[in-house]
Amino acid sequence: MRSPAGNAELALLLEVAGTPKPGNVDRHRDLADLRFEHFLAGAVGAREGLELAADGAAVGPAFERAVEGMAAQEGGNTQFGALLLLVPLVRAAREDLAPPVAESVVRETTVGDAAAFYRAFEHVDVAVADPPDDMATLDVRRGADAVPALEERRLTLFDIMDRSVPGDDVAREWTAGFDRSFAAAERLAELDGPIPDRTAAVFLSALAERPDTLVATKHDEATAREVTERAAELVADDALERDRDAVETFADELVDRGVNPGTTADIVAAGLYIALEHEAIEL
Amino acid sequence: MRSPAGNAELALLLEVAGTPKPGNVDRHRDLADLRFEHFLAGAVGAREGLELAADGAAVGPAFERAVEGMAAQEGGNTQFGALLLLVPLVRAAREDLAPPVAESVVRETTVGDAAAFYRAFEHVDVAVADPPDDMATLDVRRGADAVPALEERRLTLFDIMDRSVPGDDVAREWTAGFDRSFAAAERLAELDGPIPDRTAAVFLSALAERPDTLVATKHDEATAREVTERAAELVADDALERDRDAVETFADELVDRGVNPGTTADIVAAGLYIALEHEAIEL
Repeated sequence: MRSPAGNAELALLLEVAGTPKPGNVDRHRDLADLRFEHFLAGAVGAREGLELAADGAAVGPAFERAVEGMAAQEGGNTQFGALLLLVPLVRAAREDLAPPVAESVVRETTVGDAAAFYRAFEHVDVAVADPPDDMATLDVRRGADAVPALEERRLTLFDIMDRSVPGDDVAREWTAGFDRSFAAAERLAELDGPIPDRTAAVFLSALAERPDTLVATKHDEATAREVTERAAELVADDALERDRDAVETFADELVDRGVNPGTTADIVAAGLYIALEHEAIEL
Repeated sequence: MRSPAGNAELALLLEVAGTPKPGNVDRHRDLADLRFEHFLAGAVGAREGLELAADGAAVGPAFERAVEGMAAQEGGNTQFGALLLLVPLVRAAREDLAPPVAESVVRETTVGDAAAFYRAFEHVDVAVADPPDDMATLDVRRGADAVPALEERRLTLFDIMDRSVPGDDVAREWTAGFDRSFAAAERLAELDGPIPDRTAAVFLSALAERPDTLVATKHDEATAREVTERAAELVADDALERDRDAVETFADELVDRGVNPGTTADIVAAGLYIALEHEAIEL
């Protein structure tokens, strides 16, 4: 009944509603300047770009439009990484929302898609790492200024993503068949209870699995590892069931420190979309 | 930047995010079977019907489509009344979102619009009062079965709304130039601070102003009056600023008693839409 674009938008909303989601904005937590309502507006604003993808538009332009709409709120970047996963997945759902189809979608991206991706950075500030020296002219923060270099080197959007691994686990999804996104969808389906509770559980287990690359970029590798170790201990203790206060305390502590594992949230949003689209979760 | 349909959807999301909103689902409260995530899904589902209205479709069919989409979640009725306000307001925004235009839109509705309105009741259970004896064949709960009686009596959707006053303050908006919706928009614009806080303040003051007709329908007039008196005391005490705990306690108490002032929430959602569309509030 809900359209693919509607499911993708709802995935963004359910992601931010999941609580506790240590370090991130959730139903019960805001960051200083980035609040819950900015995520609501970001999700609504992304809808048109998601609809372009559902209608068969190329990945790059659909993504750029989604980001432009998402950014039409005053909180700043809310869902850039999540949209970088959702747009190709929505595009894949036209045929079949399965890893091989999603892989084809991203591998078939063009230089034009890469140019649109670079233009998307002009709509919003995104935390990214410095590129390697031989990629300096391709620094995404240059926005459209980088497009000539991109065209000269004939780099597709897939090539750009491929060069962003390791160090960016959203890009990693593009090169690894969206494996963590599909795994998150499976875990969401296996759990019981209201979707926001399942979302919190899947977030914590994903955070326990791999250090969050946004935390590594904005802070450092050691902080990212520490956060993952803490999450792994909470998962080992089944803390969401047995000692929820411990998770809530961890969530407050990360918010206070300004440590927000946004990449993990992006992957959970992608998992929510897959699970909704497959009707593996209902609400 | 955001489309009128996007603003209307965002209004639904901001309404449910406002907290504390005594008796209703809000960012911090769920009812037993009607949870926050059902409102998120309801808002997303309503989008296509809202887009029909923005594109100039007739009010009845756009409303029916919005309700059908809204109802595609398992919580039941989340935003029926809000959509009954939003659809004509979105339609008015094609020309000018002002009371005289909104009045024209509703006064120009047809028998066909009324038929679509009745069909909308087939998608979702809505709490309504028993109709007067001479209106029994027009009981909205009969859904499409009532359409022949409607056609025989040549009743437009405006006529149906007109006959639902008093006793239904959403219908009253249709006959009174959406006065409380526009007043809510003005109050939202005058206040300071994050939109969800303003939403809570406007909700409480609207509740203090007039007994909620959904409470009167589901419980009785005395309960509706009592709730309004309590709200008026809290407003007189400036409790949201000076004694927020008193409002939180009232909110919890109403949720526990199953008393939810849904009509007041509908009017606040309409006010949010008007304020967003006029760019009188920003986020």
